[in-house]
Amino acid sequence: MSEADVQVLQSEIKAMGDEIRSLKAEKADAALIKEKIAAMLEKKKLLGDGQLDQGKHILKTAKGTRDYGPKSMAVRESVLKIVTDAFKRHGAETIDTPVFELREVLMGKYGEEGGKLVYDLQDQGGELLSLRYDLTVPFARYLAMNKITNIKRYHIAKVYRRDQPVMTRGRYREFYQCDFDIAGQYDLMIPEAECLKIVDEVLSKLEIGEFNIKLNHRFILEGMFAACGAGADQFKTVCSSVDKLDKLPWVEVEEELIKDKGLTKENTEKLGQFVRLREFNPSMGNVELLDKLMEFEDLAKNARFKKGVLVNYCSLFGVSTVRFDPSLARGLDYYTGAIYEAVVPKALEGVSLEANGEEQKGLPVGVGSVAAGGRYDELVGNFMAPSGTKGKEKRQDVPCVGVSFGIERLFAIMEAKMQIEQLQVRTTETEIYIASAQKNLLQERMKLCKILWDEGFKVELAYKANPKLLTQLQYCEDRLVPLVLIVGERELQDGVVKLRNVKTRVEQDVPVNELVPTLRSTLSSLK
Amino acid sequence: MSEADVQVLQSEIKAMGDEIRSLKAEKADAALIKEKIAAMLEKKKLLGDGQLDQGKHILKTAKGTRDYGPKSMAVRESVLKIVTDAFKRHGAETIDTPVFELREVLMGKYGEEGGKLVYDLQDQGGELLSLRYDLTVPFARYLAMNKITNIKRYHIAKVYRRDQPVMTRGRYREFYQCDFDIAGQYDLMIPEAECLKIVDEVLSKLEIGEFNIKLNHRFILEGMFAACGAGADQFKTVCSSVDKLDKLPWVEVEEELIKDKGLTKENTEKLGQFVRLREFNPSMGNVELLDKLMEFEDLAKNARFKKGVLVNYCSLFGVSTVRFDPSLARGLDYYTGAIYEAVVPKALEGVSLEANGEEQKGLPVGVGSVAAGGRYDELVGNFMAPSGTKGKEKRQDVPCVGVSFGIERLFAIMEAKMQIEQLQVRTTETEIYIASAQKNLLQERMKLCKILWDEGFKVELAYKANPKLLTQLQYCEDRLVPLVLIVGERELQDGVVKLRNVKTRVEQDVPVNELVPTLRSTLSSLK
Repeated sequence: MSEADVQVLQSEIKAMGDEIRSLKAEKADAALIKEKIAAMLEKKKLLGDGQLDQGKHILKTAKGTRDYGPKSMAVRESVLKIVTDAFKRHGAETIDTPVFELREVLMGKYGEEGGKLVYDLQDQGGELLSLRYDLTVPFARYLAMNKITNIKRYHIAKVYRRDQPVMTRGRYREFYQCDFDIAGQYDLMIPEAECLKIVDEVLSKLEIGEFNIKLNHRFILEGMFAACGAGADQFKTVCSSVDKLDKLPWVEVEEELIKDKGLTKENTEKLGQFVRLREFNPSMGNVELLDKLMEFEDLAKNARFKKGVLVNYCSLFGVSTVRFDPSLARGLDYYTGAIYEAVVPKALEGVSLEANGEEQKGLPVGVGSVAAGGRYDELVGNFMAPSGTKGKEKRQDVPCVGVSFGIERLFAIMEAKMQIEQLQVRTTETEIYIASAQKNLLQERMKLCKILWDEGFKVELAYKANPKLLTQLQYCEDRLVPLVLIVGERELQDGVVKLRNVKTRVEQDVPVNELVPTLRSTLSSLK
Repeated sequence: MSEADVQVLQSEIKAMGDEIRSLKAEKADAALIKEKIAAMLEKKKLLGDGQLDQGKHILKTAKGTRDYGPKSMAVRESVLKIVTDAFKRHGAETIDTPVFELREVLMGKYGEEGGKLVYDLQDQGGELLSLRYDLTVPFARYLAMNKITNIKRYHIAKVYRRDQPVMTRGRYREFYQCDFDIAGQYDLMIPEAECLKIVDEVLSKLEIGEFNIKLNHRFILEGMFAACGAGADQFKTVCSSVDKLDKLPWVEVEEELIKDKGLTKENTEKLGQFVRLREFNPSMGNVELLDKLMEFEDLAKNARFKKGVLVNYCSLFGVSTVRFDPSLARGLDYYTGAIYEAVVPKALEGVSLEANGEEQKGLPVGVGSVAAGGRYDELVGNFMAPSGTKGKEKRQDVPCVGVSFGIERLFAIMEAKMQIEQLQVRTTETEIYIASAQKNLLQERMKLCKILWDEGFKVELAYKANPKLLTQLQYCEDRLVPLVLIVGERELQDGVVKLRNVKTRVEQDVPVNELVPTLRSTLSSLK
């Protein structure tokens, strides 16, 4: 059993144990509890020996977290580089904030559900601290604390949520967020268009297949809901139902709206006409769809959205993957303007979800959104002066718009893609291996290493006095090291070193004084 | 008052408050308590208005932590790049582990003192977790868990210690460690020599002035102590006294050894001869100093150290900054062989320690060690089978050697250096700014941006409909953007764009169809 399998089993057993304990606490039916216990013991058996030979030391990572081994790291770094390059291409600076914040900074920012998922640090004397839940609230705190009203920054860092992990679907308790945000007072929606351009660039460069970016606006949602008789106080709860439309059919969403949210059948029929407009017109242009929406009289009179401006900016920036979609209703309450979400509908189609060596990976076909964001104009101002503040205190708003990449999902898609295309992953950047053909050449190898390191080459050598040539060459083939320099007695006498191309196995003698330029030109010809 | 000043004051006030509370708890002299309270109130006055205008929201980072703004990040990334490049040049892979570990993984690894400094997470149900204290124990856990016996890896990540912070001296509660380690069974000390080579390379490339790497070996320490009558059980405690020799004069260390550690005057006189050998022979060669040490009869018979081998390997690798120093006695208990520590004696000499804009910085002249490490052959094996394990369980040792860079200190030195040399720090990589000279050219600017982004250029534009030309040019001068493209009506009619060199202010008209190659060649000529 792989380590990943063991972890999955352990976390399943843990979850079953939790369930049993809560059933007991609720004094549930004894037969049910017995059944659950039996199921858990079965699972435990599966773990079997794997567990026993670890002795008393339980060697595992915390629930919902994973190590990144060299191969995963190589994939992760390639994805992060594409994201970072895009952020830099658009002129962003970068900042970093501590992994924990004062608890009161985070409190009340993530709604009732989110708040429960925050990791608290133990009170060991001094301040009460919690691990960050996202990068947006620390960003807002940073702006407010330093009175910054104007910045374009990115922040790539891990965040923490005590959610139920589904590691096989890329849902972890510790995961990366890659955020790009523009703070500043601008009349036009160019910053929004730039965020969408970045999403388009990153997903194109990752070559993960067809994707599209759903776009909507809070004003349109408000207009649609108001036209259907849902009051402003119902905005959040109606949003959360509509948000399910990408997973559930309309009839189920409609039922929820009527049964749980108190809308009438008349209300929902009207709402359905609005939010299903994209569904009914899958290939209609964005401007045409917006026009069509505005044909509804009730809506045109309510909507404050400046029709089509952002869509037009996207065209100017060459972003053709944006699809205006009135059913997009992201859950977070702090959005005040445009909202967007990128999906890769066919991601992982046909991928075997079995363990692929280093870690078990896998997501169902389609992985949900891989990037999302929107405008939030009031979060920073709330830090500077809480919304309840009365009287003379001057409230300074710092309008912000941003996007966050769901980078674990992109890792998973990239790892799967590499698996399908059977691409080999290099975990080192070693260019040259210094080998020896005979015994007693350690000093010669070390001297050669020194010369090449000092010239900036990436070089390795065996740490043994008399390594076997075959072992050394095998290492290079396994690790995809392109060149080997073989030091030998004959060569030393002739003042040459043997240069071997690992792939073609072609060898040539290179005079020592021509070595550096020869290596440079050979390496650049291999690129 | 700068934000940094406020933070320093707040943490001082906090510490004074803590002291007062503990004095009260101990029922200390009332006059003393009164005096302390008065001092604290004085400090509080200093904070004054700065505090009041923040309203009820306390806008600060957790004690002992800091934000990194764009300028600090630019410095941090330049330092990290030099470190990472060195690790890659030596063929290392990279891994990452979660920020928290099961508490029992960390327990008992950092001695009594270290253990107190571990941050625990609150018990919110489920596993008991703690934040990592270093990267070495998670590395050992990773090796043991995945049964890896052979790896050369680096790991760059933040670690956490609830120490008393001295932020003006670069001592934080959240800080980076950059670790390079080689795990594997090798007879020769080549991995040690490679670690020292890396330290030499990184510190040379950082150009932070003269440095040297102190080298010693556990066997030599054991031999010296035994020859002076200190038993094996006293090893750790004698080490901790000797370790102070870089800060305290010998007489004080000697006094501590006699009074607190139970050595006799005869013992310490002998010990002094050994450990002060480098002090007495500051310019003696390493091999000669080793020879001199071995002239002491008691020592030669005790020392198991293979005289001079590592020193010789260092010469082969061209490392001339290693100084064998018998007084080096690093505190950590897990070292089993060579130990080393790099110091920059004249770091920050002549640096003004005043606030330099973004954050207050500053260390006293000399900053202590900037890199340190050694061999630890038993840590991984202890994970696989705890040392108390009896009977048949097979213990597998995974010998390791590594080095860790004290990167916050290097940041501080680099920031100070930039301050002295008045180097301007670029926080973005923007190459080209798209400006307009007249009104109503937004669409033209956006189209040009799109073309250049798609060609891979790093480009920015103003987010306003009709920005002033002067404002746009000023932005480029402030941000050190090298090139500006100015879109104008006349130019549009002529099918050209005006290209302006920000530094020289020279302008030229470039035909639109020659724009991309012209920009590429201009940018490469500027490098």
